[in-house]
Amino acid sequence: MRAAVMYEAGDVRVEDRPDPKIVNPADAVVRVVAACVCGSDLWPYQSMPAAATGRPMGHEFLGVVEETGADVTGLRAGDLVVAPFTYSDNTCEYCAKGLHISCHNGGRYGFDGVDGGQGEAVRVPYADGTLVKLPVAPDSALLPPLLALSDVMTTGHHGAVTAGVGRGDAVLVVGDGAVGLCAVIAAKRFGAEQIVLAGRHEARTSLGREFGATDVVAERGEEGITRIRDLTGGVDKAIEAVGTRQALDTALGAVLDGGTISRLGVPQYELGPIGPAEFMRNITLTGGASPARAYIPELLPDVLDGTITPGRVFDQTFPLDRTPDAYRAMADRQVLKALIRP
Amino acid sequence: MRAAVMYEAGDVRVEDRPDPKIVNPADAVVRVVAACVCGSDLWPYQSMPAAATGRPMGHEFLGVVEETGADVTGLRAGDLVVAPFTYSDNTCEYCAKGLHISCHNGGRYGFDGVDGGQGEAVRVPYADGTLVKLPVAPDSALLPPLLALSDVMTTGHHGAVTAGVGRGDAVLVVGDGAVGLCAVIAAKRFGAEQIVLAGRHEARTSLGREFGATDVVAERGEEGITRIRDLTGGVDKAIEAVGTRQALDTALGAVLDGGTISRLGVPQYELGPIGPAEFMRNITLTGGASPARAYIPELLPDVLDGTITPGRVFDQTFPLDRTPDAYRAMADRQVLKALIRP
Repeated sequence: MRAAVMYEAGDVRVEDRPDPKIVNPADAVVRVVAACVCGSDLWPYQSMPAAATGRPMGHEFLGVVEETGADVTGLRAGDLVVAPFTYSDNTCEYCAKGLHISCHNGGRYGFDGVDGGQGEAVRVPYADGTLVKLPVAPDSALLPPLLALSDVMTTGHHGAVTAGVGRGDAVLVVGDGAVGLCAVIAAKRFGAEQIVLAGRHEARTSLGREFGATDVVAERGEEGITRIRDLTGGVDKAIEAVGTRQALDTALGAVLDGGTISRLGVPQYELGPIGPAEFMRNITLTGGASPARAYIPELLPDVLDGTITPGRVFDQTFPLDRTPDAYRAMADRQVLKALIRP
Repeated sequence: MRAAVMYEAGDVRVEDRPDPKIVNPADAVVRVVAACVCGSDLWPYQSMPAAATGRPMGHEFLGVVEETGADVTGLRAGDLVVAPFTYSDNTCEYCAKGLHISCHNGGRYGFDGVDGGQGEAVRVPYADGTLVKLPVAPDSALLPPLLALSDVMTTGHHGAVTAGVGRGDAVLVVGDGAVGLCAVIAAKRFGAEQIVLAGRHEARTSLGREFGATDVVAERGEEGITRIRDLTGGVDKAIEAVGTRQALDTALGAVLDGGTISRLGVPQYELGPIGPAEFMRNITLTGGASPARAYIPELLPDVLDGTITPGRVFDQTFPLDRTPDAYRAMADRQVLKALIRP
């Protein structure tokens, strides 16, 4: 099969790889119908040291089940399924709590002999626990929003859940990437009244307004914080959807004492500001990697009936062989989120 | 009047200072009946640079109202009152939310011309908003536990509230100081089933057991974490009542993914571990400086009827003139918490 492999920063290739086969009885092989490039794929795209063997890329995909292992009972060949961005058994203590991202048997696509999602097919471990069956045909117009459930929409939702967003709230969303935009959708879905989106890319912030952002702040640093405070008087809840120190500092500056910041962007720092100042202010830092699998059943009906339209974050489609172009376009911020069609 | 003043690390003196007088119409002057030394007083005791004028010390006290300003309506001379460890107007937006520690008009004893609590009398700003009237006589045997409401008991309670401790929980409390011990009381009060107290000072951990700790872990570092995990399988909720990186690292090592750590000790670091590892684990960091004023009315009945006995943290009483000895004894860990009697 053909699949995308990263060899070092800036070097993504689509090449021939072995066709996935059932290895363990809980596996399924999924023929990919749609995949995409994640904002988090751009971190290694900017920094990965050269590697001889390369890393299969991609962790968001949906497709058709081709083959199932002997232990798989909930799926059969021909089922259309969406994969959350990590696999999980859905039975361990963490999964039982809804924290599938920490599944004792879980793992990441592209590691430990598991295929990446940016390819023609993927062997999915713990298929019963991981994959969610979709009640549409493989040529449905709903494929893009359903694909968004694999990561960005469930991640944005995680931000709103962990920040405790509720009816009437004022919420700050830092970052106009696909996750930030989906956090706007999620905040709106929970009834937030004022949603300030901090971002400077106009096409994206415009989409953010359509998703429910009531205000957009393009300024950064102290200037941005002042604008947000002028607009809101300070917020109790912020969702940080970038992962940089600057984005965190914006959230810290904009929240009121006693406020909550939910982080959705993988931190590009090891140590952060949790000293006496933040302590005296009673700032709560929460969020983290989303347990996407836990949220898909809850969000699926809203996608199916069009209540939420996270598929709009996909602004360009690339054939699989042009995956390297998709990375380049996203890294250059010419494309918000690239959909890949094998 | 006589009052304690710190001039530099290790140098606390009791000296003559001007008698407090009403300055603003919302002030009251309180004649101190009992005060104490806080664990947080020990940080400047270890590190304060030499200062010509010195800093009046102490922020925990109870006493009898001696005089009230023209605007004070809820108190009168002769009332016995307890002071939360910061003053607050009890009317601003933060106070209305129960976050008195961030009161727009609030402040700290010993700063900005306000007396410290370790003295014969204190001018208390925003007396109506700050002081809580106590329904006992000034010679009541309940004075020590009522004094504990000014800080340590309301701080321990804040840890249990912000960590979300509830019935049946397993909770880790890091630190066997007075705040850690009060956090044990608070966790027990909320119905925690297993309370692991991490501390190595036997007299203190024994008191912790009497307060409700089910297990004591004296080991530190990795060894301590392993013990806690062996005892509990990992906890969902931890209260960090020290303020050092080591204490935070113990909590981080002991909590399960998705767990919450509430910090009660003023951090002795500016930057802390909130990088990709903590992000992937969905660790929530919460807590902070306690809004003591908000909690006193809730805890007062339990102190009055003896349901909780936080006064037991006071293991030695010093006359005011021996306050320097109280600091030394606490810094040497010979005394858990020193009560001061003017």
